[in-house]
Amino acid sequence: MTGTDSGDPMVAVTDRGLAYGDGLFETVLVRDGVPLLWNEHCARLSRGAGRLGFEAPAREWLDALPGQAPQGEHVLKIMLTRGSGGRGYRPPIPAEPRCYWQFIPFKPMPERWEKGVSVRLCRLRLARQPALAGLKHLNRLENVLARQEWQDDAIAEGILLNDRDQPIEATAMNLAWFDQGQWWTPELTECGVEGTLRRVLIDKGLLSIAKTEDAPLPRFLNSQSACLFNSVQGLWPIVECFDSGHQHVPGQWPIDGPVRRLQDGAHTLMGYQFNFPTS
Amino acid sequence: MTGTDSGDPMVAVTDRGLAYGDGLFETVLVRDGVPLLWNEHCARLSRGAGRLGFEAPAREWLDALPGQAPQGEHVLKIMLTRGSGGRGYRPPIPAEPRCYWQFIPFKPMPERWEKGVSVRLCRLRLARQPALAGLKHLNRLENVLARQEWQDDAIAEGILLNDRDQPIEATAMNLAWFDQGQWWTPELTECGVEGTLRRVLIDKGLLSIAKTEDAPLPRFLNSQSACLFNSVQGLWPIVECFDSGHQHVPGQWPIDGPVRRLQDGAHTLMGYQFNFPTS
Repeated sequence: MTGTDSGDPMVAVTDRGLAYGDGLFETVLVRDGVPLLWNEHCARLSRGAGRLGFEAPAREWLDALPGQAPQGEHVLKIMLTRGSGGRGYRPPIPAEPRCYWQFIPFKPMPERWEKGVSVRLCRLRLARQPALAGLKHLNRLENVLARQEWQDDAIAEGILLNDRDQPIEATAMNLAWFDQGQWWTPELTECGVEGTLRRVLIDKGLLSIAKTEDAPLPRFLNSQSACLFNSVQGLWPIVECFDSGHQHVPGQWPIDGPVRRLQDGAHTLMGYQFNFPTS
Repeated sequence: MTGTDSGDPMVAVTDRGLAYGDGLFETVLVRDGVPLLWNEHCARLSRGAGRLGFEAPAREWLDALPGQAPQGEHVLKIMLTRGSGGRGYRPPIPAEPRCYWQFIPFKPMPERWEKGVSVRLCRLRLARQPALAGLKHLNRLENVLARQEWQDDAIAEGILLNDRDQPIEATAMNLAWFDQGQWWTPELTECGVEGTLRRVLIDKGLLSIAKTEDAPLPRFLNSQSACLFNSVQGLWPIVECFDSGHQHVPGQWPIDGPVRRLQDGAHTLMGYQFNFPTS
């Protein structure tokens, strides 16, 4: 495994990560050198590399990274590429993957935890590609184009629908809504990124998977409460959802007991300490 | 415009081209310092940058590149990225795009021009994403996964269908078939890369665009003749098309007058000199 840390932050121009987005990444919350949800991040990287057809670094090799972080809260960004070589799109056999990492200083946004966020519906529709769905791969132009749709800082995130207008995720977070007494998150078998926090919340029974055909947009917009979450930011309640033109507000939600309880579950996993009333 | 040539072939690890595939590329045939189809390559780069929302290099700046090539035939590979910066997926405003280029020695394959090629149907289906269709962007995992499906060198290319089983292109070439007295190539409004040679052949009236809904797989498989082409390799007649398992041959074609005439038209544009009978 070739590695390059932030002291030597250069990549060969021939790296297939640049040429084709032929690789994966992880963004890991690290607090005082201790990574959060680390098992899940390592497992997703390994699963992703398996699906793309090359080797992920050994677990022991990865385990040496987070401890290099300075004190405080940082995001450890790991990029794993198939390396250089091959003929055009054809991958080299065997590949010589490369791993790059950086520590990025990070401050969470407790006001979003507390007061929730406004979001909007993105115009861009996610394409359905089962071969890549769920992976945190380096082909992220859809996310970039969607995030480019708005500049208003009062809008925290954009909701992404697929080409059948079914809600999937936000540009950089997973989505959930509370409805019929439980929390639902869209299945990600055709598009979207399988967040590590999403995975743990499902494993703990706090979140159920909604089949996309059973989850049209109105089911989200008319739900009882709603939120966004990822393994770095934690969980943000959604209080309102604007349409793409920011003119209408097709969805509004209270910050109620169910969303506080899910937030509490998520933030306990992430070591985020704060106390809001949970009922 | 920041540039890096092959004498200094490194890229910042923070470049959005690596992080998100947030960029475009061109592969240009250069013969003794003279680029072929250069107007079309520059126009596509500019069109693509416009669609992604950043600036392409000025034409005069690009014009200085091909002359740096050594004697002989080379591929000038140009990668244009949005550069570094922004917050996560959110692009910086203004962006500071970067341009990287390399000259790669190239030898065309006259035996494929003469005798044609065998191809196969890929299992991977192209996702339909109108926001990215046509662009030669850096999100190419679909092409990589498709090209990874076979190792047999007797198979020159793989035919890519969309998720409705309509033929679109090959992994690195455009596709055409002859049928009802003319050459057809699939429209690329939902997926696929708009090749520069394709564009010129259409502009010259040698190739017509087939609406995907009017061009199901059997229309290609049962056509009178068929070929693949791009601005580097020229035009390869297709003589047979295997299924994904390489067991059956659902399509077979002669190398006939129509394919030789289209090849002649393409190769005249590219300065490829060879004489095959055209009828």
